[in-house]
Amino acid sequence: MLRTHTCGQLNISNLGETITLCGWVQKSRDLGGTTFIDVRDRYGLTQLVLNTDTDANLRETGKQLGREFVIKVTGNVVERSNKNTKIPTGEIEIAVTELEILNVAKIPPFLIEDETDGGEELRAKYRYLDLRRNPIRNNLVLRHKMAQEIRKYLSDIDFIEVETPVLIKSTPEGARDFVVPSRMNPGEFYALPQSPQTFKQLLMVSGFDRYFQIVKCFRDEDLRADRQPEFTQIDCEMSFITQEDILNIFEGLTRHLFRTVKDLELGDFPRMQYADAMRLYGSDKPDTRFGMQFVELNDVVKGKGFSIFDNAELVVGINAKGCAGYTRKQIDELTEWMKRPQIGATGLIYARHNEDGTLKSSVDKFYNEEELAKWSAAFETEKGDLILILAGETDKVRKQLNELRLEIGGRLGLRDKNKFAPLWVLDFPLLEWDEETGRYHAMHHPFTSPKPEDIALLDTDPKNVRANAYDLVINGTEIGGGSIRIHDRALQSLMFKHLGFSADEAQKQFGFLMDAFEYGAPPHGGIAFGFDRLASIFAGLDSIRDVIAFPKNNSGRDVMIDSPSTIADAQLNELKIKTTVSLS
Amino acid sequence: MLRTHTCGQLNISNLGETITLCGWVQKSRDLGGTTFIDVRDRYGLTQLVLNTDTDANLRETGKQLGREFVIKVTGNVVERSNKNTKIPTGEIEIAVTELEILNVAKIPPFLIEDETDGGEELRAKYRYLDLRRNPIRNNLVLRHKMAQEIRKYLSDIDFIEVETPVLIKSTPEGARDFVVPSRMNPGEFYALPQSPQTFKQLLMVSGFDRYFQIVKCFRDEDLRADRQPEFTQIDCEMSFITQEDILNIFEGLTRHLFRTVKDLELGDFPRMQYADAMRLYGSDKPDTRFGMQFVELNDVVKGKGFSIFDNAELVVGINAKGCAGYTRKQIDELTEWMKRPQIGATGLIYARHNEDGTLKSSVDKFYNEEELAKWSAAFETEKGDLILILAGETDKVRKQLNELRLEIGGRLGLRDKNKFAPLWVLDFPLLEWDEETGRYHAMHHPFTSPKPEDIALLDTDPKNVRANAYDLVINGTEIGGGSIRIHDRALQSLMFKHLGFSADEAQKQFGFLMDAFEYGAPPHGGIAFGFDRLASIFAGLDSIRDVIAFPKNNSGRDVMIDSPSTIADAQLNELKIKTTVSLS
Repeated sequence: MLRTHTCGQLNISNLGETITLCGWVQKSRDLGGTTFIDVRDRYGLTQLVLNTDTDANLRETGKQLGREFVIKVTGNVVERSNKNTKIPTGEIEIAVTELEILNVAKIPPFLIEDETDGGEELRAKYRYLDLRRNPIRNNLVLRHKMAQEIRKYLSDIDFIEVETPVLIKSTPEGARDFVVPSRMNPGEFYALPQSPQTFKQLLMVSGFDRYFQIVKCFRDEDLRADRQPEFTQIDCEMSFITQEDILNIFEGLTRHLFRTVKDLELGDFPRMQYADAMRLYGSDKPDTRFGMQFVELNDVVKGKGFSIFDNAELVVGINAKGCAGYTRKQIDELTEWMKRPQIGATGLIYARHNEDGTLKSSVDKFYNEEELAKWSAAFETEKGDLILILAGETDKVRKQLNELRLEIGGRLGLRDKNKFAPLWVLDFPLLEWDEETGRYHAMHHPFTSPKPEDIALLDTDPKNVRANAYDLVINGTEIGGGSIRIHDRALQSLMFKHLGFSADEAQKQFGFLMDAFEYGAPPHGGIAFGFDRLASIFAGLDSIRDVIAFPKNNSGRDVMIDSPSTIADAQLNELKIKTTVSLS
Repeated sequence: MLRTHTCGQLNISNLGETITLCGWVQKSRDLGGTTFIDVRDRYGLTQLVLNTDTDANLRETGKQLGREFVIKVTGNVVERSNKNTKIPTGEIEIAVTELEILNVAKIPPFLIEDETDGGEELRAKYRYLDLRRNPIRNNLVLRHKMAQEIRKYLSDIDFIEVETPVLIKSTPEGARDFVVPSRMNPGEFYALPQSPQTFKQLLMVSGFDRYFQIVKCFRDEDLRADRQPEFTQIDCEMSFITQEDILNIFEGLTRHLFRTVKDLELGDFPRMQYADAMRLYGSDKPDTRFGMQFVELNDVVKGKGFSIFDNAELVVGINAKGCAGYTRKQIDELTEWMKRPQIGATGLIYARHNEDGTLKSSVDKFYNEEELAKWSAAFETEKGDLILILAGETDKVRKQLNELRLEIGGRLGLRDKNKFAPLWVLDFPLLEWDEETGRYHAMHHPFTSPKPEDIALLDTDPKNVRANAYDLVINGTEIGGGSIRIHDRALQSLMFKHLGFSADEAQKQFGFLMDAFEYGAPPHGGIAFGFDRLASIFAGLDSIRDVIAFPKNNSGRDVMIDSPSTIADAQLNELKIKTTVSLS
């Protein structure tokens, strides 16, 4: 090796040893006759001392050093007079006898420090320099530890990691498939998997019993902060189990991760019906780090002549605790914020529970003190609280009020990144109506089984058929979800029929799976966690970008390598395709 | 859970317990009044006994059972009168009280047994049934164990697993890149990585110090038994190291795998110069399970009037030990085999060391007994040995003699699948001449560093420049290879120049890497093992197919899911591409 130790390794127990370190120059201070250099590697930082007064070689080489130069030094471990107790190597320094420059460095385009001066775009272009910064590298070390613990936990309970193919088949469901032209099969395409769903089910048919994989998946859709065209799933499937088994095992996995990686002990995870999550939080992924549950007011407020409430399908609100001091201006701003197209509320009704005990609403004309007392009782307000109310179509106002609840929760500091509130959401609907295509879509995916007692509703009341489907939510983020699958050909065919497939289409696209069901398919189910999201929650980040070594931007571009890019005509010719867009 | 135990779990210590098992019917024998059923899952096989005489329910359900039906049984663990000592559950059986059919099964298209009657194509189409067979499933369990041990070994010595992107950039070097049209960037394409080479080097520039990844890679080239369009690499890179460090660490990893997974203790791995491997075995991946090294005869045979030898650049042979008894016909057949176009030898000269001590050659006219004694000395023959000799251009005859050596080694039973002969091959040439394009190609890849003492030869004698490159070979199969990389922009530019890149092309394709070298790149190097090949060697297989859950055939097709396939015009339109081939 070029070195005897790393830059994070030496301490007082190494005094007197002659050692060699390699690393990057973090900073250098020339104090006239003595130069102090901090040398950095992945493992830490060590202080070097160059006696430039007495050693001409050290003086000459030392002079050339700049930030981020790569150096190799040999020297003796000595005790520091001025100790730094904040770092493990802070009690010692190296009295350098030999200094070699292994590589020079241009001045970096931004500071390689925990707090940098580089903007997002610049850091993306020089991602390899951004990755030198401790916070980013620590995220990836964290991610590595998580992956190790996930594999250990699952392997210890008989799960086998099986690699499923990346070059698979496009499906009509997969309008957002990335496709790959085949040179050996001209005119035909592979697709990249949005998930290994059908393969893991086939592994159950094969008797693998317990499968998992930490696996890249792909989706060509418009990107947001928490979406990337390629992302990583913790993908699992089990045979001969019930929903209860899956919840227990993956709750166990999640607790194990928090325990081993973050040294946090989470208790039993609460569980909630999908219908209750929608009613109490207006979301299928409620942030349960704080309460502020919805209170429905139809019984309390209707029939008093206030047409907005009287005509509304649902009147619902929250108690913004301690916000009665909001000025009229602040409430107006909040109302405007709610009216933005992204949220689309038509207005915001409020009622203050003043410090003097009086109640005051924005609709005093329709509701007297006695009526407002009923509101206060419904919201369990105390002095200083602020009631915020929306009215309108049930689905819409719930969605809008969810946004308001999260906003107020954030303002009140109730969304602490160091607090973790997991929640199982159960009994999702099987189908959801898609306005755009005018037909039902599978809410989870077409292989999810309906609850047996609801199968009869498929014909009469499809939207109320519940699925054996579940999601794990942490802090309002969907970490993943799964379901008990269909393992019966007839039921799977029925499902495809209800999703608008003809028998022919279903057979053409998913015949291999339905055929497999005829050769002894066991009852099975599974779950998949978004690994990027889980890692970002562990790292306390809002975006998944910085738990990914080389992420893409919102246009799906890697600006560091400048990809995607045009390819040579010869290559297009060989693939028997051409582009229909002219690039000037 | 649906079951209390698995089918591999119960033994004499469970006697008297009431248990529930789930699994597949392996076979069923009705002995009139009693039915014996073997039920199978991933973990093993358990014998069930149905008293059909006394229990009408069991009788009726039992009657319906066929091979591969999925069942759930409850019963009592009782001692078998007729014990089977070959399986862990062989001392007990289950006296069944309840039997439920969880799913029916059609008659499988081939036997789900260790030895099956299904042909390759049929088994590929019903891969999910082939995967039920113990030998195939065991391969994947083996692979899982290997992956676990690899990750454990590397993580324990500070390697971090980092996921690199799958959607990257196509390069002109990458005529065999799979490409992916970008919907968001019409007319532009991603490429799938042939390896994460540039990304792992960037991670070294980022100071990650020790990186690894078990990662899918892609190559769109014509397929053979040991090639798949998607394959898996154990990919590694380290900073501040020498070649010696890399060899030691990855020899350690390989020994660890043999120890933990196969319970085999391999000693120190021998090392050989590339030049010696070519001289002694005619191959850069010699099978060293057996000797039979090449013997060069130019000094011995030239100048005796035999023009074939006299005109040859190289006369070289092997001693096929104990083969003197080969008949003339057998030798003629061997000669014909060598003349096939795949090998292309022009002829085969032989000499027998007869049991009576006499020497007899096919060219007695030119070489008398005294001359043949020199041959015998050169090959160290004993009575009963057969000398086989080729003559011609050095590179060609070495390649041909390599084929002959492997063939004879196989016939002599010297290529035992249970014996493992690892070998490091060192000091590969940096460049190789490509007849087709009329220029030099990088033998390993363009990022491999030349030996410093050979850099001067780049201009004068490129083909004799040696690289800091190494391969690990086991049993004649290249398991993987690596190199110490270039970490200096000027040397990397020089390398691209010698590979025929203009400065512009080099910058356009690999500018991001060369730019990165200017910001403090550490000395670094790495290695990548082919995980599929390594697993196939561990499993004792000739092909990598059966260590892959869902492999593709020689045309790159997955015949089970019927992929690749055509995609909808709407999808092509959205991607702004069209195909230039019409599919009838």
